[in-house]
Amino acid sequence: MKNFLKISLLALSIMSSINFVQAQQLAIVEDFKPSSLNQPQQEYPMVNSQGYARFKIAAPTADSVRVSLGLGGRGGTKLAKAEDGTWMGTTEGPMDEGFHYYNVKIDGGKFNDPGTLNYYGSVRWESGIEIPAADQDFYALKNVPHGNVQQILFPSLSTGTSRRAFVYTPPGYEKGKGKYPVLYLQHGWGEDETAWMNQGRANLIMDNLIADGKIKPFIIVNTYGMTNEVKWGKMKEFKIDGFQTVLVDELIPFIDANFRTIAKKEQRAMAGLSMGGMETKTISLNKPDVFAYYGLLSGGTYASTDFKDKPQPKLIFLSCGSKERPDGIRKALEELKTAGFNAVSYISEGTAHEFQTWRRSLHAMAPLLFK
Amino acid sequence: MKNFLKISLLALSIMSSINFVQAQQLAIVEDFKPSSLNQPQQEYPMVNSQGYARFKIAAPTADSVRVSLGLGGRGGTKLAKAEDGTWMGTTEGPMDEGFHYYNVKIDGGKFNDPGTLNYYGSVRWESGIEIPAADQDFYALKNVPHGNVQQILFPSLSTGTSRRAFVYTPPGYEKGKGKYPVLYLQHGWGEDETAWMNQGRANLIMDNLIADGKIKPFIIVNTYGMTNEVKWGKMKEFKIDGFQTVLVDELIPFIDANFRTIAKKEQRAMAGLSMGGMETKTISLNKPDVFAYYGLLSGGTYASTDFKDKPQPKLIFLSCGSKERPDGIRKALEELKTAGFNAVSYISEGTAHEFQTWRRSLHAMAPLLFK
Repeated sequence: MKNFLKISLLALSIMSSINFVQAQQLAIVEDFKPSSLNQPQQEYPMVNSQGYARFKIAAPTADSVRVSLGLGGRGGTKLAKAEDGTWMGTTEGPMDEGFHYYNVKIDGGKFNDPGTLNYYGSVRWESGIEIPAADQDFYALKNVPHGNVQQILFPSLSTGTSRRAFVYTPPGYEKGKGKYPVLYLQHGWGEDETAWMNQGRANLIMDNLIADGKIKPFIIVNTYGMTNEVKWGKMKEFKIDGFQTVLVDELIPFIDANFRTIAKKEQRAMAGLSMGGMETKTISLNKPDVFAYYGLLSGGTYASTDFKDKPQPKLIFLSCGSKERPDGIRKALEELKTAGFNAVSYISEGTAHEFQTWRRSLHAMAPLLFK
Repeated sequence: MKNFLKISLLALSIMSSINFVQAQQLAIVEDFKPSSLNQPQQEYPMVNSQGYARFKIAAPTADSVRVSLGLGGRGGTKLAKAEDGTWMGTTEGPMDEGFHYYNVKIDGGKFNDPGTLNYYGSVRWESGIEIPAADQDFYALKNVPHGNVQQILFPSLSTGTSRRAFVYTPPGYEKGKGKYPVLYLQHGWGEDETAWMNQGRANLIMDNLIADGKIKPFIIVNTYGMTNEVKWGKMKEFKIDGFQTVLVDELIPFIDANFRTIAKKEQRAMAGLSMGGMETKTISLNKPDVFAYYGLLSGGTYASTDFKDKPQPKLIFLSCGSKERPDGIRKALEELKTAGFNAVSYISEGTAHEFQTWRRSLHAMAPLLFK
């Protein structure tokens, strides 16, 4: 887990990156529309066809309103008093495609944009905005059969709690009789078990892949990946043992007992994004007899030496955004393939350490699982 | 639907009521603890054993911070600058037991308290706080078998959309073979299909009733009760036809096709809170062959004359809080019983037009259904 801090800090610096080259070349096109993640009846924030985001926030007597989205480390987008007394502003350049977390600084306090839905990231429910992507069709809500996402509460003796997980069951599961493989899919640091189905749209990605006949249907399970709360900057204190016990000794048996799963290693995968990738690596190597398919999404790499005296997984999937460290992924892939592993990599073009990278990664990984 | 506006306005005025009599008698006991609805790692807001709520919000250079909770129409609780530069304040009196929505006015803008989880009410995701109740055990998360809450997306031809519903299935449903009755349970104005399982805790209420052997397990379905968005103050423009079609012609057949239900009138109930009660009344009378059990929770009353030329329901359940208009409920009950109906009423002591009334109402109604 040593790479946690390094990777996380890199992530933070890239997080809200905008495309400066494009910014200098474009005049802003005035075709702004409400973001698809706005609360009912809310016009702002808006996005335009180039990927600019525009904000409007009412706080008539505030001295300063600033949105964290726009220039990352350099302080986001400062809003200015508009004629109607609200605060308005537009990002200096187009944002990367896909989902972004943000928050609003009002007179020095951190709040959310009342216009948007909230998503759990950075250990807080943050505002969310969606920049329409050229490839958004693969995670769109379409008129196809839909699987269900269910909240389960499973007993955890090791932590003395009822813990929550979300379970995606494919279309037809309710009335069918078949048994399914299972992907255990983990969120990143500061997120929780809601991330993959909310901002990740994992259920819609699956519905669409299944409708297109591109994958054999499987179940996805998301649960919270920590048992000891660790604050930002203290990741070295994080111990995986607690979560490993919850996952391997409590959640998996519960899922196998309560859902129609094919309860064996060859039909079980684990993957995760960022911290969830690091967890996948650690747990898959600690417990080589539990999963047969491993996926690290912006979450590090395996080396062939990691598998000394261990069974080879059926698949190693490595991915990240082109704005992260794609060379690290490419190098690791080369090394694994040379050593005879079934390894596949995926680089998400034009995206950073954000959910668009992970939506695309899931979309690329799903057809490779349970072959 | 004529009573909508009247009832809704009454609701608003009662909404954040506090107990003034008690307020004058008590000295504040300094045993404040974080509210159970706080975001992870957040200390504030806090509540004490008397029901006072204390807020702490960081906005160092704001001129004014005010919380909507505390004195209702008179403006909530004004926070003051504390020594550490944050804004702090305590409600003037103890709050009613149970769940309350609120928001925070900062320099004239309406935001949420970054300390709490958000709940959809008043057509916005609002801050939520929980005042511990003497009877909170019936909706507590306990070490009992838990049912699942699943999000379904069902096709709606009449609206040309995939619409969302939440379905509670009792413990053991996944692996069992039995068929279940279904309660269609509606939210109030400004809320949505998330309300009953989030702030209502309907799933935990059911889990606990089932574990105690007090009810025969059944399924609960929640969906959004409007097809035309209607703003506050324009409820006269609301037409129920669209929602009635979605519920009766689309959702019910979908549920019966995809879940193990007993698909007949005698095993189907409809109930709702506030606006959802008005909807229940209208739809149950428009479509007397669909449901056999009717529940209006702070949502009006039936008169025996409503059933002229119509089959008698198996049960009419009427409820409200003692701080609403219990006399209206009592009178209606008397009239219905005299006319030979199986009618039952429930008055929630010490609560107003808020979710504690409706949690208790569900708890009181559930054992009477599907007899």
